[in-house]
Amino acid sequence: MIIQLEKNIDKTQKEKLFDKLTALKIDARLIKTNFREYIVGIPSGEFDLREIGNMPGIADIHRVSDSYKMVSRKWKLNNTVIDLGDGITIGNGELAIMAGPCAIESEEQIISIVNHLKKNNIRIMRGGVYKPRSSPYSFRGLGIEGLKLFHKHCSENGIKVITEVMQVSQVEPMLDYVDIFQVGARNSQNFSLLDVLGKTDKPVMIKRGISGTIDELLYSAEYVFSGGNEKIMLCERGIRTFERATRNTLDLSAIPILKDKTHLPVIVDPSHGVGIRNYVPPMALAGVMSGADGVIMEIHETPEKAFSDGPQSLYYPQAEKLYRQLRETKKLRDHF
Amino acid sequence: MIIQLEKNIDKTQKEKLFDKLTALKIDARLIKTNFREYIVGIPSGEFDLREIGNMPGIADIHRVSDSYKMVSRKWKLNNTVIDLGDGITIGNGELAIMAGPCAIESEEQIISIVNHLKKNNIRIMRGGVYKPRSSPYSFRGLGIEGLKLFHKHCSENGIKVITEVMQVSQVEPMLDYVDIFQVGARNSQNFSLLDVLGKTDKPVMIKRGISGTIDELLYSAEYVFSGGNEKIMLCERGIRTFERATRNTLDLSAIPILKDKTHLPVIVDPSHGVGIRNYVPPMALAGVMSGADGVIMEIHETPEKAFSDGPQSLYYPQAEKLYRQLRETKKLRDHF
Amino acid sequence: MIIQLEKNIDKTQKEKLFDKLTALKIDARLIKTNFREYIVGIPSGEFDLREIGNMPGIADIHRVSDSYKMVSRKWKLNNTVIDLGDGITIGNGELAIMAGPCAIESEEQIISIVNHLKKNNIRIMRGGVYKPRSSPYSFRGLGIEGLKLFHKHCSENGIKVITEVMQVSQVEPMLDYVDIFQVGARNSQNFSLLDVLGKTDKPVMIKRGISGTIDELLYSAEYVFSGGNEKIMLCERGIRTFERATRNTLDLSAIPILKDKTHLPVIVDPSHGVGIRNYVPPMALAGVMSGADGVIMEIHETPEKAFSDGPQSLYYPQAEKLYRQLRETKKLRDHF
Amino acid sequence: MIIQLEKNIDKTQKEKLFDKLTALKIDARLIKTNFREYIVGIPSGEFDLREIGNMPGIADIHRVSDSYKMVSRKWKLNNTVIDLGDGITIGNGELAIMAGPCAIESEEQIISIVNHLKKNNIRIMRGGVYKPRSSPYSFRGLGIEGLKLFHKHCSENGIKVITEVMQVSQVEPMLDYVDIFQVGARNSQNFSLLDVLGKTDKPVMIKRGISGTIDELLYSAEYVFSGGNEKIMLCERGIRTFERATRNTLDLSAIPILKDKTHLPVIVDPSHGVGIRNYVPPMALAGVMSGADGVIMEIHETPEKAFSDGPQSLYYPQAEKLYRQLRETKKLRDHF
Repeated sequence: MIIQLEKNIDKTQKEKLFDKLTALKIDARLIKTNFREYIVGIPSGEFDLREIGNMPGIADIHRVSDSYKMVSRKWKLNNTVIDLGDGITIGNGELAIMAGPCAIESEEQIISIVNHLKKNNIRIMRGGVYKPRSSPYSFRGLGIEGLKLFHKHCSENGIKVITEVMQVSQVEPMLDYVDIFQVGARNSQNFSLLDVLGKTDKPVMIKRGISGTIDELLYSAEYVFSGGNEKIMLCERGIRTFERATRNTLDLSAIPILKDKTHLPVIVDPSHGVGIRNYVPPMALAGVMSGADGVIMEIHETPEKAFSDGPQSLYYPQAEKLYRQLRETKKLRDHF
Repeated sequence: MIIQLEKNIDKTQKEKLFDKLTALKIDARLIKTNFREYIVGIPSGEFDLREIGNMPGIADIHRVSDSYKMVSRKWKLNNTVIDLGDGITIGNGELAIMAGPCAIESEEQIISIVNHLKKNNIRIMRGGVYKPRSSPYSFRGLGIEGLKLFHKHCSENGIKVITEVMQVSQVEPMLDYVDIFQVGARNSQNFSLLDVLGKTDKPVMIKRGISGTIDELLYSAEYVFSGGNEKIMLCERGIRTFERATRNTLDLSAIPILKDKTHLPVIVDPSHGVGIRNYVPPMALAGVMSGADGVIMEIHETPEKAFSDGPQSLYYPQAEKLYRQLRETKKLRDHF
Repeated sequence: MIIQLEKNIDKTQKEKLFDKLTALKIDARLIKTNFREYIVGIPSGEFDLREIGNMPGIADIHRVSDSYKMVSRKWKLNNTVIDLGDGITIGNGELAIMAGPCAIESEEQIISIVNHLKKNNIRIMRGGVYKPRSSPYSFRGLGIEGLKLFHKHCSENGIKVITEVMQVSQVEPMLDYVDIFQVGARNSQNFSLLDVLGKTDKPVMIKRGISGTIDELLYSAEYVFSGGNEKIMLCERGIRTFERATRNTLDLSAIPILKDKTHLPVIVDPSHGVGIRNYVPPMALAGVMSGADGVIMEIHETPEKAFSDGPQSLYYPQAEKLYRQLRETKKLRDHF
Repeated sequence: MIIQLEKNIDKTQKEKLFDKLTALKIDARLIKTNFREYIVGIPSGEFDLREIGNMPGIADIHRVSDSYKMVSRKWKLNNTVIDLGDGITIGNGELAIMAGPCAIESEEQIISIVNHLKKNNIRIMRGGVYKPRSSPYSFRGLGIEGLKLFHKHCSENGIKVITEVMQVSQVEPMLDYVDIFQVGARNSQNFSLLDVLGKTDKPVMIKRGISGTIDELLYSAEYVFSGGNEKIMLCERGIRTFERATRNTLDLSAIPILKDKTHLPVIVDPSHGVGIRNYVPPMALAGVMSGADGVIMEIHETPEKAFSDGPQSLYYPQAEKLYRQLRETKKLRDHF
């Protein structure tokens, strides 16, 4: 059960409401987000919804049978729209394209990519400065100094920054230089990190774990939402299966399912999904056709020299062709 | 190595060629298909291709490094086109749509579906008469009598029949009533069956095994081709993974990969891929966008009464809307 | 519901029983096996078991809630014991060890292996004469002539033959030369083959499919039993997962689960399970400790020269050491 | 390449060594652990090992071709032994048994379990105080206060504490109350956490990720070792596969493989591996037979009332029987 509180609910009304919930043996939890207040209630038996619904200070009340509550579409039929400022939004109908290198490698690179994006009217740039690497001896990113450069060039050009945060202690220092926090596949169930991101006001994109179920992804989003942050996106990026022809198996069926089960925007990452450059475009297009609100993809000015993920990064001309096709595909989908 | 023989190669020329191959320590195997003759040669060391290429009776010669040979695109760049007669082809550019029930249940049903297909200009009907079922106590299909009825109504209406063959002994009796033999996921590596289908002149659609790799699917096709039948299609229908929200995980990335590796047409089966009616249309559309040459889908006149697969079968109005969208999507893809 | 009929039930009694079942709206199916007659009944509603149980000609009656019936332990608490003759049994307490090459390669090899087995008091020899191979160009076995040689040397030395049958048409010619038919992983759901093996009187060992669930394996056994053959063993041989360090992932937990759910003997195949020689012994021992009734393993007189599966075949000295350890492990398990 | 430095190497010797490595174009990294100093060197080309090996201050030098270095058995043939104090060690031959509840629930429970363990001569108790839970609304553990109670009762009774650490900020406050830090499956690739645990002097047990490969587990251990902490154990606890009869698929083949590839102790967790009480004992025994150095298992004074993991927790009498059997099994294995 989800109770949306009136914005002007007063203290006494709130206390009475909690007394009532206690009397009805409903385990109630107050959730304050960047937009409003809710109560998530888990009942221990039968009760009459009207007994609560008619109390003062309540805007609306919904039964939600899903185990995840706040991110369920059962109480919020309208799509969540994430406003990044400067007229850039995600989830309100326009296809969001996020492109950039796997890892930020140098200022020259940032400038090259920013110019490429501007030319193609792409408003969000991806790029890692903290890189989770299987081996401790691999390149682990430029860190906060790299992020500052990344953010500087983007903000000067009206481009928003999405980058991965790997641990709780990075959240605070990164805060001023990030427009969207990305939670990587390996941290998809790092509940401590999700809790902390719930306390920020920055949009969060959660990637599905490499062996995470669709339900687990929704639960991870519930952590952020119940922590206080409604600005959440979900990202399908491939799961680990027996098939070895691709880096992962991109599970596009997750997209219509997520769109059905949650009001949150859904993004597809074809680059990690297949891991092979030439198969990225068809999978990106298929992802949009299956219902994605956006695409995040890896591009590189010279992929063969990339520090990481070179084989799955697109060349500029490939990317430019793909941007056009993605937009036309989205247009056709809208027409259906 | 693949050697295409001239159609008019004479006996002496052929003997000399085999002598030469033996001398070069190349393990050679003659393959006679419904179209022509080839030699698949597996060399045991280095040799000069020209020594063979210049011999009389040889149309062309290609090195093929793949372990599967005849189905590789490395020697045959052009797409294989399968001609079903009556102007119906697969693989030559037009989207092939195959629709019908999971199992053929009655003559009334056949008539209903045939009328629906005609109205929508769908030229291929699917429907099982031999059903592989996990439990021996489940409905196992109407058998050969059902097939005869199925074929009768279809052929009277210019519609082609695709149906599953489960064992070697069924091939002969089914032969006159089938336009495309379907090899099901469970029989994807039933090599005895593939061998026998290689001896027929009927098109064969091989479904990917539930845990079959893309390479294994190509090997299965190689069985049919090397057996003598070039009329082969491959079908992605979902693989078994840990995810439980869908019946299987439809691996759409297999489609561009197969299109890249083989000259054979590739079909997508979104019905078994997701197993849930409402997610079939987006996955069908995504499949076409990813490069499929055709779509095979389950429809039913009253899905809630279906003997099997009801939850994944489309209602007629859903299917009609989807046919239109599929064709528009294919048109957009052609335009890219 | 399973009804065991008296051996001397007469025709009239049987007819009355079926009339009764029809009246009670129970879908009834008579099963005649190599040992006795049963009726599997699937009720459509509630009924009083005593109404049937008291009828003449009925030995016993059991409710069985599992979807598989005849192979369930719910009606048959005692372990099925398979008698191979000459004092060799499986499932009655003694550990069954089956060893031999992947494929029968020559008469010399047969003689070498038979001598090795005799020396170590191993009474069952494995070896393939029909080999399912991914590629049509690989060695596919010596066929029926190889089997005859295989059987000749074994029977002269009191050793039983287990070998794979790949298709329905092989069953008849193989019948006289086989002591146990093996159904391979790829044919685990080849229902046509299972049906036919149900008509024979020879023991059948069914391997779990490469992505087959434990339930599906039980269903496959149900095909053979309901076809008329009670002499069935099940074999865990590894499933396909994401892990690439091993050929398959040997799922030893399947062993205690199968022992719990069915009365049939359970065999472990560590050779295909791991696919790497040095890890075969620990997995074989672990398999016995987890409850297996027997072990099937690949050995070779010179593994590095084996036509197939060389890397997972044990050298004779390794095998001899393992036989001793397996027997000691079984002894300890019996003592628990 | 791994260079073990002499404990008394002086500053000048060390500088000369690094100069030499630079001259040889070897990327060198100094690793200071709780035991000694090493250099991990990654060469960019060929070089003569003796040029380095003969320099003063070097104890030993080894080529290690594995991508993980310090945890490889290629340079350290002897098993790592972890000394927990009070005569309790892991990896030196005696079977380590760790038992306790999933989550610490109350002081009464701690006392009950401690008494049970003492009675059975079990010297290590498991129990979570920070619980990673899919849903934010589930019980998340008693936290640091629970840990203090847990540690108090254990240390008073000569029992060591193993408990899960979920995030970097917990490490410091937990330090005085923990004998072994457990890194859970979801944090198996939380590299930030692994880095920090490398800076402590406490033993660390890393669980394999739910879809982590054996290699990835070794890489995770390499993070801790290269961070400075040699006291590492690895734990197989089941991987996620398609099979639904068990909670996870316990991959026992990982045990002999890990024992072969690394010098670190390997622990098996049958409780999470199967998730069903009655199948825990056979899998625990099989785990020991396959080569495990220890077993970690869930027990509960009243499993049906457990806050979490009740269905996989053993009753005391079951556990007591299992302890005896585990020790007998280990004895048999030692005898082989």
